[in-house]
Amino acid sequence: MKKIRVLDTTLRDGEQTPGISLTVSEKLRIATKIDEIGVNIIEAGSAITSSGEREAIKQITSAGLNAEIASFARAVKVDVDAALECDVDSVHLVVPTSDLHIEYKLKKTREEVLSQSIETAEYALDHDLIVELSAEDATRSDMDFLKKIFIEGINVGAQRICACDTVGMLTPERSYDFYKELSTLNTPLSVHCHNDFGLAVANTLGAMRAGATEFHCTVNGIGERAGNAALEEIIVSLDTLYGKNQNYSIEDNGSSIYQTDVNIQELYSTSKFVSRLTGVYLQPNKAIVGENAFAHESGIHADGVIKNAATYEPITPEFVGHKRKFIMGKHIGIKGLKNNLDEFGIKTTPEQLTEIFDKVKSLGDMGKCVTDVDLQAIADNVLELKREQKIKLEEVTIVSGNKVIPTASIKLKIDDKDVLEAGVGIGPVDAAIVAVKKGISEFADIELEEYHVDSITGGTDALIDVIVKLKMGDKLISARSTQTDIINASVEAYLSGVNRLLEEVN
Amino acid sequence: MKKIRVLDTTLRDGEQTPGISLTVSEKLRIATKIDEIGVNIIEAGSAITSSGEREAIKQITSAGLNAEIASFARAVKVDVDAALECDVDSVHLVVPTSDLHIEYKLKKTREEVLSQSIETAEYALDHDLIVELSAEDATRSDMDFLKKIFIEGINVGAQRICACDTVGMLTPERSYDFYKELSTLNTPLSVHCHNDFGLAVANTLGAMRAGATEFHCTVNGIGERAGNAALEEIIVSLDTLYGKNQNYSIEDNGSSIYQTDVNIQELYSTSKFVSRLTGVYLQPNKAIVGENAFAHESGIHADGVIKNAATYEPITPEFVGHKRKFIMGKHIGIKGLKNNLDEFGIKTTPEQLTEIFDKVKSLGDMGKCVTDVDLQAIADNVLELKREQKIKLEEVTIVSGNKVIPTASIKLKIDDKDVLEAGVGIGPVDAAIVAVKKGISEFADIELEEYHVDSITGGTDALIDVIVKLKMGDKLISARSTQTDIINASVEAYLSGVNRLLEEVN
Repeated sequence: MKKIRVLDTTLRDGEQTPGISLTVSEKLRIATKIDEIGVNIIEAGSAITSSGEREAIKQITSAGLNAEIASFARAVKVDVDAALECDVDSVHLVVPTSDLHIEYKLKKTREEVLSQSIETAEYALDHDLIVELSAEDATRSDMDFLKKIFIEGINVGAQRICACDTVGMLTPERSYDFYKELSTLNTPLSVHCHNDFGLAVANTLGAMRAGATEFHCTVNGIGERAGNAALEEIIVSLDTLYGKNQNYSIEDNGSSIYQTDVNIQELYSTSKFVSRLTGVYLQPNKAIVGENAFAHESGIHADGVIKNAATYEPITPEFVGHKRKFIMGKHIGIKGLKNNLDEFGIKTTPEQLTEIFDKVKSLGDMGKCVTDVDLQAIADNVLELKREQKIKLEEVTIVSGNKVIPTASIKLKIDDKDVLEAGVGIGPVDAAIVAVKKGISEFADIELEEYHVDSITGGTDALIDVIVKLKMGDKLISARSTQTDIINASVEAYLSGVNRLLEEVN
Repeated sequence: MKKIRVLDTTLRDGEQTPGISLTVSEKLRIATKIDEIGVNIIEAGSAITSSGEREAIKQITSAGLNAEIASFARAVKVDVDAALECDVDSVHLVVPTSDLHIEYKLKKTREEVLSQSIETAEYALDHDLIVELSAEDATRSDMDFLKKIFIEGINVGAQRICACDTVGMLTPERSYDFYKELSTLNTPLSVHCHNDFGLAVANTLGAMRAGATEFHCTVNGIGERAGNAALEEIIVSLDTLYGKNQNYSIEDNGSSIYQTDVNIQELYSTSKFVSRLTGVYLQPNKAIVGENAFAHESGIHADGVIKNAATYEPITPEFVGHKRKFIMGKHIGIKGLKNNLDEFGIKTTPEQLTEIFDKVKSLGDMGKCVTDVDLQAIADNVLELKREQKIKLEEVTIVSGNKVIPTASIKLKIDDKDVLEAGVGIGPVDAAIVAVKKGISEFADIELEEYHVDSITGGTDALIDVIVKLKMGDKLISARSTQTDIINASVEAYLSGVNRLLEEVN
């Protein structure tokens, strides 16, 4: 069993993602979460950056976390001084080692870089900091010079060395060879990969195989350009794909040859948390933590998963704290559809099932996605059920502007009774939902857990896609509406969710 | 030079992404685009799925494309008949080979699967189809059985074989070993990887090294669950990372040992096109084609890129048809900031530059992103320029609802003249923009190229982030506004962009 340590740099490399800017309290919350899941070292920022950054690092170092807290530092004393001011445990001391960086960026010579690095490392060590001596653009550097810097650093007392693939140019096999060579230095070796070619995770795994004992990563793989190696993908790969017996079957994968301290079951919640705080949206097919990572649409797949989940899932969603989803569409098979209807408690004859199936397919052919709510409507229609919606929208009107208090009036029909309400809000959508909530308050105590809006096509006449997540008691459902008008879409999505919740509870 | 063929399955595996449903004409447009960039084989769909799917495949096969057009087919005659009806060139004939799939999904024996596969292959070959015999879940199959199916298939005339890593469990090194073993069959060998652990691209590259001569992929890596191997990442990796001399420097990377027919410069536009038609949003840090793939924020990086782009870019953005971006934030260095100001034609003294720099940093510490428009305002303030905005918003009011024609009135001050206008639209935002456009029509002929809206936080009182791209002549700029009210945010973003455009032209 090989013990691997994790350095998370979500708060440094991750925060360098263009467009991200975290407040002090957001940084502290992320550090706390990352600490909780068992990350060994947290790179909390780069102390020299600004006074706000130092304030954030100080709060993190004084929060009593288990992890070692590091600051990024260049090989200059002012950077180390700034780190010392924040009371960190260690510095990630980064020195460019490629001639490209030395000549063009620093306009220095190799000798100058070498002496400056060693002096700064000694300075940090003299002040009781742990030093992880890190080579920037290491993978495009002259290997002899690279080793020379590392050896001199180790000689003055640097505790760890790290080689950065700064522009992500390694391949998995080159990564293996490269880190194998550095592992001959017999010092704890760390790998830091960037994802410019989509290979950051594979290259990190290559380095682990070669003898690296620590890896750098960010939650969700965020970072400058194409980002860094993703924490969740590396952790699950190390655990699942490197079993002792390397047998491919799920049941007998053998325990991994690697061990980390990270709690795998918290990976999904950590991903969601960081995505929300940073505002970096994940694409649905992001590995391990994407919304679709365990979603199944096509007929063949859904059918297989129902029979035995392992047929189309390498790990269970619960393993990473995620959930399985079945989604309808034109590829759905009749078995997947039946499974969905069963979940809604809708019983059909084989003929009715075929009829529903055909309608779902033809909607798919027209380019339409079929949501849960749509499927119920189709099924009701085929079964000739007149499922009366408890709450119907009769009319909604809003007035808004920059010198007008956003105001909405709403007319609902609830069990054939007209209900009129008005509300104000901080914007027209908020006003409309406030009015609706007032109107239904005596029938249902519903919380809006999540509201997401996205434009689907290009202009202001675009389709607006609204997805809401609603909660009543401990029942949580999502509903959606796609229209050209954001207010109508929001109200409709909200009401269709409310009706579903009321139905399921009764 | 090893020639590699590309099978793109965006229209089959890609369309199985939960939530995607393409119309016939969208499928044809994607096929045409993929054909244009030089993909060798297009898997146009699965003919058996539905009549709409067959209609799409028929339109693609009769469009006179250069690529070979394939249909997915299971090892049953009805699937081959459906493919024949669509007049495809070939079938991607997929047979589950793992015991897990055979026992649980098919409830058959290995012998039954073998004989059914070979019969179906023969049937397809008898009808003049090219057969790519493909093993589903090949990587969890018994190697002897897997080879047996392939050998019997080759014996009856299957032209190509393909092994699918259906749940993405390979590692790059296992991929190499696995495809090396299959390459001993001396038949064109294809690799089909899924991305459940984030390793699809690396595993595909491993198979290429082992002797596979064709790979399956989708544009943007879309597909069921975590998706498939991404076309753009594989193409650029093969071209850039596998130079003959494997020297790491940019200038002397040597020409690749691999060759494909794909036009690399069209990769970004292809990605955008498919993202728009499928509605699958890419995360900003998607490798090669993400919006941030060539964006630089942090001080150290931006400084390096200005001096020599290769310091922080492994390839140029132009190489893949993308663009470089510099983005402001608290990590920006003074040199990156100066570069930005120079671009706007703003000249500063060193003292003024430092003052602007400090203001940008403190905005960053408060969690704010600094847009181009913000920076101009800060600079104007420091320089004590009173940059009069040509067009100012005095008042906007909108009325909308489900029984109201969305209507907006607007009062602008243009060069101290009041301009009043009203407009109707298909939603309140559209109405407001229509009114603004009317108001400014005699001053500026501006086109709205792109409008994107996203909610930043969780509820209906969320901050709404509106980004617009505007064009006047051949000048394109983007502007942004973040507010709780979508209409105010839209109008403000639009007007701040218009003012910038008018200023730059004058």
